[in-house]
Amino acid sequence: MIATLLALVIAAPAHADTLVDNVNGITLDQQGKVVRFTGLVIDEDGKVKQLLDRKDKRPERPDFKEDGKGRTLIPGLIDAHGHVMGLGLSLMTLDLSETRSLDEALAAIRKYAADNPDMPWIIGRGWNQEKWGLGRFPTAADIDAVEAARPVWLERVDGHAGWANSAAMAAAKITAATKAPEGGRIETAGGKPSGVFVDAAAALIDAARPKPLARDLDRAFLLAQAKLIEQGITAIADMGTTIEDWQAYRRAGDRRQLTVRILSYGHDVGDMALIAGPEPTPWLYDDRLRMVGVKLYLDGALGSRGAWLKAPYADAPGQKGLPLLTPAQLRNKMVRASMDRFQVAIHAIGDAANAEALDAIADLNADLPGERRWRIEHAQIVDPADIPRFKQLGVIASMQPIHQPSDRLMAEARLGPERLKGAYAWRSLENAGVRLAFGSDVPVESANPFPGIAAAISRTDAAGQPFGGWHPEEAVSRESALDGFTRTAAYAAFAEDRLGTLMPGMRADFLIVDSDPLLASPDEIRRMTPLETWIGGSRYYRKKGG
Amino acid sequence: MIATLLALVIAAPAHADTLVDNVNGITLDQQGKVVRFTGLVIDEDGKVKQLLDRKDKRPERPDFKEDGKGRTLIPGLIDAHGHVMGLGLSLMTLDLSETRSLDEALAAIRKYAADNPDMPWIIGRGWNQEKWGLGRFPTAADIDAVEAARPVWLERVDGHAGWANSAAMAAAKITAATKAPEGGRIETAGGKPSGVFVDAAAALIDAARPKPLARDLDRAFLLAQAKLIEQGITAIADMGTTIEDWQAYRRAGDRRQLTVRILSYGHDVGDMALIAGPEPTPWLYDDRLRMVGVKLYLDGALGSRGAWLKAPYADAPGQKGLPLLTPAQLRNKMVRASMDRFQVAIHAIGDAANAEALDAIADLNADLPGERRWRIEHAQIVDPADIPRFKQLGVIASMQPIHQPSDRLMAEARLGPERLKGAYAWRSLENAGVRLAFGSDVPVESANPFPGIAAAISRTDAAGQPFGGWHPEEAVSRESALDGFTRTAAYAAFAEDRLGTLMPGMRADFLIVDSDPLLASPDEIRRMTPLETWIGGSRYYRKKGG
Repeated sequence: MIATLLALVIAAPAHADTLVDNVNGITLDQQGKVVRFTGLVIDEDGKVKQLLDRKDKRPERPDFKEDGKGRTLIPGLIDAHGHVMGLGLSLMTLDLSETRSLDEALAAIRKYAADNPDMPWIIGRGWNQEKWGLGRFPTAADIDAVEAARPVWLERVDGHAGWANSAAMAAAKITAATKAPEGGRIETAGGKPSGVFVDAAAALIDAARPKPLARDLDRAFLLAQAKLIEQGITAIADMGTTIEDWQAYRRAGDRRQLTVRILSYGHDVGDMALIAGPEPTPWLYDDRLRMVGVKLYLDGALGSRGAWLKAPYADAPGQKGLPLLTPAQLRNKMVRASMDRFQVAIHAIGDAANAEALDAIADLNADLPGERRWRIEHAQIVDPADIPRFKQLGVIASMQPIHQPSDRLMAEARLGPERLKGAYAWRSLENAGVRLAFGSDVPVESANPFPGIAAAISRTDAAGQPFGGWHPEEAVSRESALDGFTRTAAYAAFAEDRLGTLMPGMRADFLIVDSDPLLASPDEIRRMTPLETWIGGSRYYRKKGG
Repeated sequence: MIATLLALVIAAPAHADTLVDNVNGITLDQQGKVVRFTGLVIDEDGKVKQLLDRKDKRPERPDFKEDGKGRTLIPGLIDAHGHVMGLGLSLMTLDLSETRSLDEALAAIRKYAADNPDMPWIIGRGWNQEKWGLGRFPTAADIDAVEAARPVWLERVDGHAGWANSAAMAAAKITAATKAPEGGRIETAGGKPSGVFVDAAAALIDAARPKPLARDLDRAFLLAQAKLIEQGITAIADMGTTIEDWQAYRRAGDRRQLTVRILSYGHDVGDMALIAGPEPTPWLYDDRLRMVGVKLYLDGALGSRGAWLKAPYADAPGQKGLPLLTPAQLRNKMVRASMDRFQVAIHAIGDAANAEALDAIADLNADLPGERRWRIEHAQIVDPADIPRFKQLGVIASMQPIHQPSDRLMAEARLGPERLKGAYAWRSLENAGVRLAFGSDVPVESANPFPGIAAAISRTDAAGQPFGGWHPEEAVSRESALDGFTRTAAYAAFAEDRLGTLMPGMRADFLIVDSDPLLASPDEIRRMTPLETWIGGSRYYRKKGG
């Protein structure tokens, strides 16, 4: 593992002039028009110097020449909404999703514990007793047989239950007298907690978990970075950076290990101000890191009925979800950030949350200085009447196309048929003139952007379902999908002067891929993988055998 | 003010080769021997390339040549113990020490309030009603007449009382019913608090003061940096850096405004780990910033009888002071820092605290990895029996010579005659083979190192008192004083490979001064000022008319 990490940070050296030739090159220009080219000249600062057409003369003596062998070259993809450290920490946990029996799971726990002797807690995910044919929930005693000394805490595949060993229950001071909180259930055996904690009860164990140490965060970051680059993500908006996260990014930068570009939004105004101070940071480490704004949470998620809706949930008639901020709190935070020129990104999933975010922006827009580029993150369920307001108020819709196939059945249940008209309504927003930035919400979803692009243009899932697409009128063009993951994702973070396209003067961040995303079928796009990932004119990833 | 700050960060440009010629140059070499030279060649990285003797050939065509006009050139002085942000914040407050009447003070308050309309509180210091001939303490009503809207809070010249206006008392929820804490007194008039809070009662108002904002810290830092450079300090050990302080230093570095070199010790292990993570940071910003270790407080100060003594205070027979950490706490923090290769600097003023710090080091020394360079900060009152242990255990004594004249009368009262044998015992420590690093403890004292050097060699105060020096057998040589403020101050922070001398390969940090510190009288040294301050081969300060 360590060897892999080290290998990843050894880049091809930057040369005075690099020529990448013989490629099927695609980029958008600053206006969003597709530009095709066959050669790319990169200067010594790692910026695009020139795009070459087939007939253009090549530089006579480039210091480094790379033959693209006719393969497709596209701009590095930008994830407009992810959680870098969340990805890294999830990559450090034990993955039980491939286990086919309780015995296999226990063997995996034993091996992981032995491989990680310094970890104070063993954390994992992905178990499914149905798949194991177990006929019951697993128990603490099951784990105790392979790891009794250290707490073990394993999330079920659906995220709706956790499985603890006795040490974890002891650390959380769980006894037979412990009551499950509202919305939760503690499984019991013989009148005592058996080890499985359902829904809200999982928080009882979570509260006892130690915070990761700086060295864990450093390792998590390098794992996340390697995963992102392997998946073709050359820049990512980190939505909710804490001071601990930021310090890990800086350590990587200070040690010349920061490769992926991080466009950081502070975790509420407290971390924002502690990290960046009185204004957004400068671009750091050759445009690898910048804190540009703040992330505010206005509501929760649809699956757990935390999204704040105008009318009750179709499958829970008494419930509408709840705002997480009062109108005054939301506006105060927005003003505090904006007065110091931080960009504001508001998490809003339900239609009521989206309407309130728009109301707040309308209240403040006139009185705040500078160009604000308000962002609404997710904009998942929007009242069709509110769609034109995004454009009127200059709001960027930061959306995650992959959520649509992932959420489809759940969204139908939660919302009923009528409200689906404004659900994941990419094309309606685009038609209203709204800028769409696309991302993944990693680690809620995989960071792999290609299934997202496929969903954006087809409204189908990995199996191509439903045939013809779910509300296919909301699909966008291939060009718009590429734009959302490149040019507009950069614009959405005030980075369009350096990232997002391959026009001259921009950072030479690009991918060599195995098919042309403007020509391939949705299914081909979904299975596309980067063969190479270049950032700032240096190659940081090459697929084995690619 | 802002114009001054900006001017200070505009450095002379670095050139390929710079020759500073015709100087009375002095440095110590790596072994501490005095080296004299008449010319200095600096390379393009701002490092010393060559020291030139009178007879040596000069480079034929230096890119930049500076004529020293025969003046004295000495290494930039390193303050081995200061509080950078404390200095900066103190420079931002209202200074009333020159006011000669209550009316003058009120006029100064009114002007300062008008000049600083955005400050939520007006903070000041230095008033003295005796000097005003007022015949009473001032009152809240006095201030209210010139500033009633914002809280005003002004420390008396001796630090033993504070003067608040009504808004400050309201912010602190002070009423007629408020009781003074033990060790404090609330002045009253007509049965109500009149505005003056004595000794421990001042904490009642202090607790209500808002924390400084990031923009205040940024301004404070630039003020501190300008003051340090003007006084000839080119590097300073910052003893107790908080995350907020660190972020301000980084903002300055990121914006290319960081000029002085900061050798940072985290404010206990929490800030240390949050700032630096799993190990000391690399040198950042061309050796301008590094977190190298942690500062731990083992006891308080002598003046307030917080220093922890083996036997009771001579002037308070029942009291010995108290340790601020249990033996287990101290050792746990030392181990935690040392295992991650952070250096440990322990504040110990009283002889009991020094003995306990030495005991803890003795307990741990054998089992910890690497070269530790333990530091005891202040080492003010040491049992003569403990002096040899500093050497045996490899402990650096980090001392502030200026404390000796400042504390003299107070120390005599607190300690009685017998214990003075181990008080401020520089020469005894040196004779025992202990390395002495010298600093100022700014802002407790002025950062000006020259009175410190004068005290170190003469044991006299600014008036030359007492005649012949106080316990003059503890004075050190001029060479040792210079060493403590240069070579050993660098060694004490693991920086001797780049700072502290002007030998080839070291950073070209130096001062042009108005007399030769190896020849001048103590009184001349005390009044010495830098004419120019150069850091990394660039001039950052030139005295007006100098």
